[in-house]
Amino acid sequence: MQKLLDGLPKIIESAHGTGGRWTHELIESVFLPYFRSQPLQSLADQAVVPESGTGRMAISTDSFVVTPYRFPGGNIGDLAVNGTVNDLLMGGATPAYLTVAFVLMEGLRVDHLVEIVQSIANAAAASAVSIIAGDTKVVCGKAEDGLFITTTGVGFLPGGVNWGPEFIQPGDKIILSGTVADHGASVLTKRYNLAFDTVIRSDTASLLPAVMAVRDLCGIRCMRDPTRGGLATTLAELSQTSGLTLEAKELCIPIRDDVRGLCEVLGLDPLYVANEGKLIAVVAPDVASTVLSRLQATEVARDAAIIGTVTKSAPGYALLETAIGAKRVLELLSMEQLPRIC
Amino acid sequence: MQKLLDGLPKIIESAHGTGGRWTHELIESVFLPYFRSQPLQSLADQAVVPESGTGRMAISTDSFVVTPYRFPGGNIGDLAVNGTVNDLLMGGATPAYLTVAFVLMEGLRVDHLVEIVQSIANAAAASAVSIIAGDTKVVCGKAEDGLFITTTGVGFLPGGVNWGPEFIQPGDKIILSGTVADHGASVLTKRYNLAFDTVIRSDTASLLPAVMAVRDLCGIRCMRDPTRGGLATTLAELSQTSGLTLEAKELCIPIRDDVRGLCEVLGLDPLYVANEGKLIAVVAPDVASTVLSRLQATEVARDAAIIGTVTKSAPGYALLETAIGAKRVLELLSMEQLPRIC
Repeated sequence: MQKLLDGLPKIIESAHGTGGRWTHELIESVFLPYFRSQPLQSLADQAVVPESGTGRMAISTDSFVVTPYRFPGGNIGDLAVNGTVNDLLMGGATPAYLTVAFVLMEGLRVDHLVEIVQSIANAAAASAVSIIAGDTKVVCGKAEDGLFITTTGVGFLPGGVNWGPEFIQPGDKIILSGTVADHGASVLTKRYNLAFDTVIRSDTASLLPAVMAVRDLCGIRCMRDPTRGGLATTLAELSQTSGLTLEAKELCIPIRDDVRGLCEVLGLDPLYVANEGKLIAVVAPDVASTVLSRLQATEVARDAAIIGTVTKSAPGYALLETAIGAKRVLELLSMEQLPRIC
Repeated sequence: MQKLLDGLPKIIESAHGTGGRWTHELIESVFLPYFRSQPLQSLADQAVVPESGTGRMAISTDSFVVTPYRFPGGNIGDLAVNGTVNDLLMGGATPAYLTVAFVLMEGLRVDHLVEIVQSIANAAAASAVSIIAGDTKVVCGKAEDGLFITTTGVGFLPGGVNWGPEFIQPGDKIILSGTVADHGASVLTKRYNLAFDTVIRSDTASLLPAVMAVRDLCGIRCMRDPTRGGLATTLAELSQTSGLTLEAKELCIPIRDDVRGLCEVLGLDPLYVANEGKLIAVVAPDVASTVLSRLQATEVARDAAIIGTVTKSAPGYALLETAIGAKRVLELLSMEQLPRIC
């Protein structure tokens, strides 16, 4: 790392954002060594890339403002790549291209920036996406904010893949790919310097292996990644959009003991805490066991579980059957449980 | 305006960024009424759109952090649309799709946000681009920053259009589409509350009519929009990349009297001050007069002028022939002349 930093400035200054010589030097010394795609290296104002020829393109954009910008298990860089890649995957698209726009705070440590840029490059490689265009601005914001990153992803949809909440039917099974609330719990412990016996790591990860393992199956109705707002908000949204009832059983929802303990201490409902490497799949009952076993065969979804069923019992509302057998409505997150989480 | 604001909150609060009910309400009351594309209205995590089938796609991204975020002639909203649309146009692409990601500061006035969203919608309509995806985050930043906007644009390149600095040849003519430094001067007068007899308005505008007027001509080598760093930085970059010498004549460069006066008073070189609705076209000498007259026939480029010629006199450097006949090298902007300009 030290060798990589030789000759670089120690901190970001406002002149790095003026579009002149300093900006060029920052791009050439910090970004280009890691972002090696041909369109990006040409440094034109736009990247030119081939279309895939499949006829349908998926596009997604997200800004990332997480504080702190480094946390156990990841940083804002891999979060920004995985978040946008996963949004494309949830529609069934194969992610292909990514743009990355940075808003850097004056005073940001350049060694932190290099670490984040490396994470971006690694995360992009893991999902086989090319970073083809970027932008850098510098603002005099709050130093502890560090940086904001906006990623936009372009992917391509294979013929025959048409997923969405409008295809959900009564009797469908709800599959969750792993434990809930890891990302939010990780950011929270780091933000407030909470000490526990174990380190809670963010689950930030690409869902590419999980989606590719099941995409060819008929009977997949819809996928979503339950990020901001957590599992409960996603179940509520899907119920609202489909006009049906997504019923989950609390006892079936995987959660780490330390994450559960942290949430209990802090009075947080883990079902509303953000995830960054999990998916919900709503699937036809006859393919549920196949989807489940294929997901469990991937590292990123090894803890996948069937957590519930779609019914018509309370149209438009999501229900949770609690550990003691009571049922409660899962509302959209309405209070500010945990801001600046992604 | 007042009617539009009835029932809306007065200011942005952090709960608007949590991904739950408040975020939904903000999206439904402030964004969706103006962003009417079908993919966006579906509120999925990704937008699905058709490819154009031409085989080549152009993609560009930019973050906008201008301060103040409203200025004579525009605001951060139309700036963010026009800036990215123009970047696509400079490669010869027809802009088609746009994503818009907002980072809102807590305390931002919602009436200002609505005004900006309206500007975004109007600017997108003027360039015939669909806003197909978006994102909203809220941070506790500096209130006067208001908001940052990142736009990503996707366009399609017609067959036969291949522009770039590598095609520039000695003898080519350099055409500028209008007056320099209007945007930077406008932001500056607003930022420091400078009072003049006339109001200097930003030139933020879509270059679509200008590019479409000439795109079918053979002999266009390269286009660039001289934004951050101004005309001088763009000429320097093109000289560097082409290995040739872009020589401009100071007396041929259009500039408004009030902008020149402001720059003189403040000690700014207008050639380094940002433009947001201007282009440089480097073209073969035999089409120069056709390009010029077609540009002048459009409103956005009515003041177009031939400002110089490409030579081999100082390979890799841009030269300016000053009013008194001396020649000076135009370097990349190195000092911070004017930050937070776009």
